[in-house]
Amino acid sequence: MFYYIIDILGTIAFAISGVYAAMSKKLDPFGVFIIAFVTATGGGTIRDVIIGKTPVFWLINYTYMYVIVGAVIFAILFRKQLRYLRTSLFLFDTIGIGLYTVVGVEKGIEAGLHPFMCVVLGTITACFGGVVRDILCNEIPVIFEGREIYATACIAGGVSYFLFNELPIKSDIIFAAPIVIVIVIRLLAVRYKLALPAIENKDKR
Amino acid sequence: MFYYIIDILGTIAFAISGVYAAMSKKLDPFGVFIIAFVTATGGGTIRDVIIGKTPVFWLINYTYMYVIVGAVIFAILFRKQLRYLRTSLFLFDTIGIGLYTVVGVEKGIEAGLHPFMCVVLGTITACFGGVVRDILCNEIPVIFEGREIYATACIAGGVSYFLFNELPIKSDIIFAAPIVIVIVIRLLAVRYKLALPAIENKDKR
Amino acid sequence: MFYYIIDILGTIAFAISGVYAAMSKKLDPFGVFIIAFVTATGGGTIRDVIIGKTPVFWLINYTYMYVIVGAVIFAILFRKQLRYLRTSLFLFDTIGIGLYTVVGVEKGIEAGLHPFMCVVLGTITACFGGVVRDILCNEIPVIFEGREIYATACIAGGVSYFLFNELPIKSDIIFAAPIVIVIVIRLLAVRYKLALPAIENKDKR
Repeated sequence: MFYYIIDILGTIAFAISGVYAAMSKKLDPFGVFIIAFVTATGGGTIRDVIIGKTPVFWLINYTYMYVIVGAVIFAILFRKQLRYLRTSLFLFDTIGIGLYTVVGVEKGIEAGLHPFMCVVLGTITACFGGVVRDILCNEIPVIFEGREIYATACIAGGVSYFLFNELPIKSDIIFAAPIVIVIVIRLLAVRYKLALPAIENKDKR
Repeated sequence: MFYYIIDILGTIAFAISGVYAAMSKKLDPFGVFIIAFVTATGGGTIRDVIIGKTPVFWLINYTYMYVIVGAVIFAILFRKQLRYLRTSLFLFDTIGIGLYTVVGVEKGIEAGLHPFMCVVLGTITACFGGVVRDILCNEIPVIFEGREIYATACIAGGVSYFLFNELPIKSDIIFAAPIVIVIVIRLLAVRYKLALPAIENKDKR
Repeated sequence: MFYYIIDILGTIAFAISGVYAAMSKKLDPFGVFIIAFVTATGGGTIRDVIIGKTPVFWLINYTYMYVIVGAVIFAILFRKQLRYLRTSLFLFDTIGIGLYTVVGVEKGIEAGLHPFMCVVLGTITACFGGVVRDILCNEIPVIFEGREIYATACIAGGVSYFLFNELPIKSDIIFAAPIVIVIVIRLLAVRYKLALPAIENKDKR
């Protein structure tokens, strides 16, 4: 029940970040909805497709569609007030990527994949919704530009899942602890403005 | 047989719209063909992949490949005369999205999905070829910009499929009527210049 | 063993071409790695997904991940020296697309597809990694612009596979000869600056 609520809050935060991106491009309501939808479901869709778990999750579990439709309508109606929710949305988003990472890792384990690949799947689940959003909006994906420790936090969370799994602790904690680690890393990175440096080839051009 | 002809005409119209888009970017013949191919098959490919119906339709049914190769060669050779066909192509395209919507809905029913998800699949089938075309051409997808009632017509057509299904009418009509509805809505929208308004956040920037 | 080495060299060359593209966009290390990874694996991933061969190849065979991680670290550390390797990398890349074409063709045959579709799969395997790389970097895919005979070489190689298959020769040669054909066509095209002309519609605008 607790994780269900986190999942819903994460989906809402992701969908609203899609609405923001779409509004800055002056899209129509249908375009806004599509961008919100792919932002919230894109990572899990790619995960399900590459491991062959079809129909993909949101075709089977209708909750996501209802939640996203509701979030988009809410975000469009109250778009002027959304900035007051900025901190809440950032927190939902951060909690959401933590949960999505662990969900992706567990889907990888279910599919019988190597731990390394499970971490990759978790990171894809958490990060690729935003990548598809940025591609549809004709931007270079923001997570590639190093302004936020985003993927790095997911990778650390995914790796910690397997470390905790080695310890004699309860499965609830193995599930929850990596989420906390993702959240803490991201909050610290934003608080102290940590970012990965851009790599460029000064020698060229 | 009748629907088969519609399918071919729709595929031709979609492929030629891809050729147009590719020519405006000055691509080489191979690039033109790829753009035409993804425009005509992209929506159905995404549909087949997310419901897990693989190999995807055009790998099994070679007709699409032949039709698209023919349409591309025709469109490249007669590119100066194509504007005289503009009205015909618009009609083929409109009939095509109507048919694609219903085909997508029925594939969703076959896969055992909820009616709501079937409508989503129908809309994806009809609309996402154009979305992939625009992404490959490095443009924001045109259907997101509200210049045409495109997705809205597909959604209405898909919903009407299930409404007609409740009525005591023949399956032929349940198949045909939603196609007519998609066509009528789109023709009316273009005739009376109906469009969805852009949503933007004037408060920001 | 011989083909295994070619596969590794091709993967390295593809990954490094991704690192180059990412560095010109000043991405962070994670972005560089993702671009390198999709460049090296994107074609095969699309192939596996559309024929329904999941989990996709790199989720099962970890070698690709290790090789790409190694190639990215190498390319980032020695980015100033990479230009001295330009010719080697071009050769690896050319050998790689030859091999990828034949691997794709054989996967299509395994999946029971028509020879025409097998050639298409081979071309997708060899070319679409670069297409996804360019989309993620917000560029029009370079292979669409006709500056290099790239896809054309793959198509010729794929077709030759089925022609050799008709001849009374050993399966080793049926596998190797098309690779040589792809390589020779591409080298000749680059040597003599052969390119397909852009198709545009001067009549319009």
